[in-house]
Amino acid sequence: MQIKALATAVALSAGALLSLPASAQFAKPEDAIKYRQGALFVMGQHFSRLGAMAQGKIPFDAKAAQENADIVAHMAKLPWAGFGPGSEKGAPTKAKEEIWLEPEKFKEHADKLVAESAKLAAATKTGTLEGMKAAFGATANSCKSCHDAYRNK
Amino acid sequence: MQIKALATAVALSAGALLSLPASAQFAKPEDAIKYRQGALFVMGQHFSRLGAMAQGKIPFDAKAAQENADIVAHMAKLPWAGFGPGSEKGAPTKAKEEIWLEPEKFKEHADKLVAESAKLAAATKTGTLEGMKAAFGATANSCKSCHDAYRNK
Repeated sequence: MQIKALATAVALSAGALLSLPASAQFAKPEDAIKYRQGALFVMGQHFSRLGAMAQGKIPFDAKAAQENADIVAHMAKLPWAGFGPGSEKGAPTKAKEEIWLEPEKFKEHADKLVAESAKLAAATKTGTLEGMKAAFGATANSCKSCHDAYRNK
Repeated sequence: MQIKALATAVALSAGALLSLPASAQFAKPEDAIKYRQGALFVMGQHFSRLGAMAQGKIPFDAKAAQENADIVAHMAKLPWAGFGPGSEKGAPTKAKEEIWLEPEKFKEHADKLVAESAKLAAATKTGTLEGMKAAFGATANSCKSCHDAYRNK
């Protein structure tokens, strides 16, 4: 079990180094947890504004859509550094242990969000609601599939 | 008092519209507070990695410095939308009420951080520790002066 845990830790570290804009260096697990929750919350707020436009709850505003989508695309790269080895607990968290048991699969979800949100940011540059909608849906599906698999209710 | 509060709210809204990348649209004050705290915490984590390099606690790494400084410069634009009218309370917060009593002065601090962190990101592109240090110090002073004035211990 210890060897398996070590292998998992190494795999996650290697994955992190390949895809993350800044290596994870947290003083304590609580910081990693606060970091990932903060990044996800900030991203979620901007994403929900796009969702309100996509669903017709607020008027479509091309400039605001671009700004929000650009922020989402930037923020999408960040949370994953906060899921490093040893950050399974240390503060209240809804993260399931599967994240640390199958890090490659988790990383696929993270990479998918980064890719979809980049496409969403590109799509909002068309300046039309229709241009944004499909990319928004694909990004939202990426959020949902990861939450379904790796986030407790 | 009501007129003064209204004037303050209008001034803060106008200020926000001028400088923020996305207008503040939070469902409830708690969301605004979580948003600003999350954005500030994420920024602080990346900033502290630059600080560790500037202070010689970890080796200078030009690539990591650039990545962290770019994230700081992006994140520096975000928290201020979370200090809108009505977000004085609703969740635990260290924000002093002066933020809402003198919004123009608070905005000057926010703008200063945005400007200094952009300079810091540019400075890290020199690829040298010395190039980064002065800009890091100026940015750190910007953090500190705002915390001294507007954050409770």
